[in-house]
Formats: sequence, structure tokens, C-alpha cells
Amino acid sequence: MAETVRRSTSRYGSRPTMKDVAARAGVGLKTVSRVVNGEAGVTQDTERRVQEAIEALGFRRNDSARVLRKGRTATVGLVLEDLADPFYGPLSRAVEEVARAHGALLINGSSAEDPERERELALALCARRVDGLIVIPAGSDHRYLEPEIRAGVATVFVDRPAGRIEADAVLTDSFGGARQGVAHLIAGGHRRIGFIGDLPRIHTAVERLRGYRAAMEDAELPVADGWVSLGPTDPERVREAAAAMLSGPEPVTALFAGNNRVTVTVVRLLAEWERPVALVGFDDIELADLLGITVVAQDAAALGRTAAERLFRRLEGFDDAPSRTELPTVLHARGSGEVPPAED
Amino acid sequence: MAETVRRSTSRYGSRPTMKDVAARAGVGLKTVSRVVNGEAGVTQDTERRVQEAIEALGFRRNDSARVLRKGRTATVGLVLEDLADPFYGPLSRAVEEVARAHGALLINGSSAEDPERERELALALCARRVDGLIVIPAGSDHRYLEPEIRAGVATVFVDRPAGRIEADAVLTDSFGGARQGVAHLIAGGHRRIGFIGDLPRIHTAVERLRGYRAAMEDAELPVADGWVSLGPTDPERVREAAAAMLSGPEPVTALFAGNNRVTVTVVRLLAEWERPVALVGFDDIELADLLGITVVAQDAAALGRTAAERLFRRLEGFDDAPSRTELPTVLHARGSGEVPPAED
Repeated sequence: MAETVRRSTSRYGSRPTMKDVAARAGVGLKTVSRVVNGEAGVTQDTERRVQEAIEALGFRRNDSARVLRKGRTATVGLVLEDLADPFYGPLSRAVEEVARAHGALLINGSSAEDPERERELALALCARRVDGLIVIPAGSDHRYLEPEIRAGVATVFVDRPAGRIEADAVLTDSFGGARQGVAHLIAGGHRRIGFIGDLPRIHTAVERLRGYRAAMEDAELPVADGWVSLGPTDPERVREAAAAMLSGPEPVTALFAGNNRVTVTVVRLLAEWERPVALVGFDDIELADLLGITVVAQDAAALGRTAAERLFRRLEGFDDAPSRTELPTVLHARGSGEVPPAED
Repeated sequence: MAETVRRSTSRYGSRPTMKDVAARAGVGLKTVSRVVNGEAGVTQDTERRVQEAIEALGFRRNDSARVLRKGRTATVGLVLEDLADPFYGPLSRAVEEVARAHGALLINGSSAEDPERERELALALCARRVDGLIVIPAGSDHRYLEPEIRAGVATVFVDRPAGRIEADAVLTDSFGGARQGVAHLIAGGHRRIGFIGDLPRIHTAVERLRGYRAAMEDAELPVADGWVSLGPTDPERVREAAAAMLSGPEPVTALFAGNNRVTVTVVRLLAEWERPVALVGFDDIELADLLGITVVAQDAAALGRTAAERLFRRLEGFDDAPSRTELPTVLHARGSGEVPPAED
């Protein structure tokens, strides 16, 4: 309770300063500054007295002041899309591990798939003087970052490329992965295959749809109008899209789900559906093996690690033109993608 | 490519200053400062000229300087335990939503369950002058935060309480939830029940074990030595612990899993086990409904929301003694917890 009282009377304003430390240790301000910054020119005895005063007062160096003085913060920022999407967990952790190995702090935030919020967050991180930014973009125009990049903020895009600026990008081969997944369904005898994906302004949604269309074209199969649906990945929208494709005059016999949020909802719907329907999903999901869900898996941790390594190479002076890296996917056949087409 | 060249020649050092803006707009430094900070005393025409210069130069206000001047940053920090644990996704998102509603930026980082790393991260956030901190603690001694709390950093602990300091804590009723889950197994006829939990230094692990012991005692059931195992939640350790309890002279007929990481591994093991074994897990898991996994669910989003709301009340001046809030759990019976005990 003593703690509470002290806390309530002293909030905002009582943080001890170097002056307080100097007064308590009976030394000059310059001496305290030398000790705090690990500079030479202080006797062992004086250093001990200053350290004791620092300890007693609970003094902490103000890094905001240091940032202004030295210009570097050893901090990198990560702009995520959705903190609650499990896909970004391993990605974030991999970025954090690389940052830590370079002695840097990682600061995260999320745009919640809102381009305005992405801009606001990225600029707020720049205003706090991060050395570098890793961005999973929600928007498609990143010219707002040009002044920051010119001022020296290293910037790497991951999962989706930058829009309207040249910048490094580390992506999954969404086109190739979707094409392989759909080809797998075709090889199993399916001719009528539906595609349910994310919003059409999202790069990965467009690339995966392109992969679907390529696989259908490779097999000389037509794509009916009702077989493609892009939109928000909330359960209501996805459920409605899937139910429409599975009903009607030309029902599909198989579905390709454009990401893990879509897959989860389709799996729930198919669990109640009377006719067997084949399913391949893009992205792996925890426990998908036990549920027998066939997926095209991407390596989220490798995306994060590769992007962070690129960022630190840039910070260390690597100065080639921005480049794009695409990581491969892996198809895991577990049952749902091997269901044969239902008889008409 | 022009972008690349410009970038490589100007990195570190060319960020435009207020002086540059003043020179370009042909006004004094004080006028630029007034426009940037939205203060009165500038004609519309002058303001327009300053804004044009800001735009042309790509000037951005330096928030590090502003922090030093005004002492408040409208930023809160969140110290997570593991970025890749899906339990923390909804919790983080809820904290972010509350922060955003209060016009504040949320900065995250994770301790990876390492007390030293927790301390380092929390102090790094304080050094960057966050107004408040929400901490999921890895360690059990938080006296290192006392100087920060005295200096005015509002601090709320979530999921686990603070150690050796008085601070607000928002927790799940781990004791009550585990007791209810184990009582459910006992009501189904089980007499030999195993408990597999997290590291014994983690508050929730200890509380859930206490709940298990209380339920067994309520039913006057003995707990054999080999039926309790606390430790790291990596698959190898959990698998070994479960296999040991399910074999030997007095095999258990049911298992209580202390958190979602344990549940996932036990579910995989039981999928291969020849004898049916009942399972109740603490924490819900995505798709657990389709796999028929009975769980004691906690509300991760409510934990985050409640903690963040407490933090902002503190920042708005609410000054009661620190308090502890415990949120209730809900038992979802889905099949795995209703498997009857195997015949001896």
C-alpha cells in the first residue's frame, strides 16, 4: 500500500535526472554523463559513487534524448496486417529472433487490413526513429514512405509487395502454389472447381486466383462465372459463397480456399454438407493433419526470417537495387483434396 | 531505379529539418513551429506556404523531440510471452483496439518466456517513454519496474500477476477452471486422472494444478506420484509425460492438459493410442469443435480488453489501490472429455 501512495502522489514529473544523480554522488554533471555513457576519464571510486546514486534514485538514461544525439536507435518496426491471424505468429517471431541476434528491439503494430491505418502506423514508427521497417502492406500505394526511405529508413515488404515504389519484397510463390493445388484436384478427376479468396485489392488473393485460372487453362477446363468469389474472409461471406457454388445448376465438386481464414470456414461447412466435396486450402493450419485437410503450405517463419535478414543487410550498407524473393510452397495431401468427384 | 540511386547516396543524414522548411517557405523558424504544432498566430496564406514546403521536402515532425518537450507520447507497450502462441493473438488485438480508441499507438514485443528478456524489453519500452505498460510476465520479480512506476508509467499485468510489487492484474480464474474441468472427468466415472502442465514457475501452471488437486480432493480421490507432470510445453516433453502416465502399473484413464500447447500434443498422441482415453484441455483451440475436443475456455480477447481499459483508466487519473480481476472460464463438452473410463 505504501507503494500505491507513493505512486499516486508522484505520477508524471518525478523521474530522476542526471542532475539529481550528480547532486547525490557529489560530482559534476559531466562525470555522471561519462559514467552513464561508458566513457573514459572517471576513477573507479567516483564511478562506484555515481553507480550507487543511480541505483538509489532509480535513474534511467533517456533513450529519446540519445536518439536525438546519435541518430540511431537499434529498433526496427514491423507493420502487421492482423494480430489475431495465426499465420503472422511464426512470421513475427522469426523477425524478432533475427532482430535480437542483431541487438535490435522489434516494435510491432497492426493495420487491421486498413490502408489508412497502415500509413498512420508506419509513419508513427518512423517518427519514433526506427532504423528499419518491415511492412505487410494493407494498401497499394506506398509513396507516403518515400521521404522516410530517402531519409535512410531501410524498408522491406513481406507477404505482399509495395505499391508504386521500388522496395525489397519477400513473398510466397502464391501463383505457383495455387496452380499446383488446383492441378492436384484436376488430377483427381475434378472438372468443376470453385475458388474462394480474399479481397481483390490484396496481392496474394489476385496471384492465387491467377494460379487457379492457369491450372484450369492448362487442363482446358472452362471457369463458369459463379465459380470464383473474392471478398472479405469473415465466416458469413465465405459460407455464403461456398454454399452458392455447391448448389445451383452446375455445382462444383471441389473447392480451393485462398487462405487459412477461408479454409477454416469451408471445413466447418463441409462437415455439415451431405455430399462429399474435395477441398484444398492455401496455408497450413494447426491440427489440419488430424482433420485430414489437404493444404498448399507456405513457410511463414522463413518469410519473416528472410525479410529481416534482408533488412539488416541493408542497414549494414548493402546497397543493390531492390529485389523480389519468392519462397516455394509445399503440397500436403491429407485426404480432403483426394476426395473423388461426386456422381452427378 | 532513380529511387535506388537517390536512396543509396542519401542514407543517414539528409532528413529535412524545420530550418529547411523555414528557408524554403521564406518564413521564420517560429512560424514553422506554429504550423507544425497547430498553434494560432499564422495567416492562412503563410500556413499554405509552410504546408507546401513541408510537402515538397517531405518534412516530418520528430516525435523523439516532442516526447522530450511534452513528456507524453500517447504510446502504450505490450510485453507478450510468445508471439507465435495463438492464445496471444486475440489478446493483442483487443489491447490494440482499446489503445486505438484512446488515440494511442501500441508497441509490442515478446519475452519468449525468458525473465531476463522480459526485463530488457520492458525497460527498453520505458526508455522510449511509453505512457503505460501491459505485461504478460515471464519472470516472478518485478521490482525492476518500481522506478518506472514511480516515474508515472501506468502498469497492468495480464494473464499472470506481478511478482514482489503491487500492481493491477487481470487474470483468468485458472484455479476454478481447472477444478471444473477435472470434476467433469470425475463425474464421467474417471478415478485415475493425469495432469500435464507448464513450467512450475508460471503462475497459471501452479493455479491449474491447484484446481486439479482440489477437484480430486473434493471427490476423495488419491493422486499418485506419476500422475502430475509440470515442465516445458514442447511436444517431446509432453508426449513423454503423457505416454508414461498412460502406461505403467496404474495407468490413468483420463488426462487434463494445462494449456493449449499441451492439448495439441496430447490430441496427436491419443489419435494413435490403441485404448480410448478421455481428455479435457485448458484453453480453446481453433477447429477443436470439429475434432471433438472438450475444453475449459478462457476469453483471451476479454483479458486484453479488460487490461487495456484498466490501463487507460489509470492514465486518466484513476488512482485506487492496485486490484486483481479474475475472469470466468466456460466448459465446452465436445466428446473427448466424455469418453468413459476404459475397463482395467
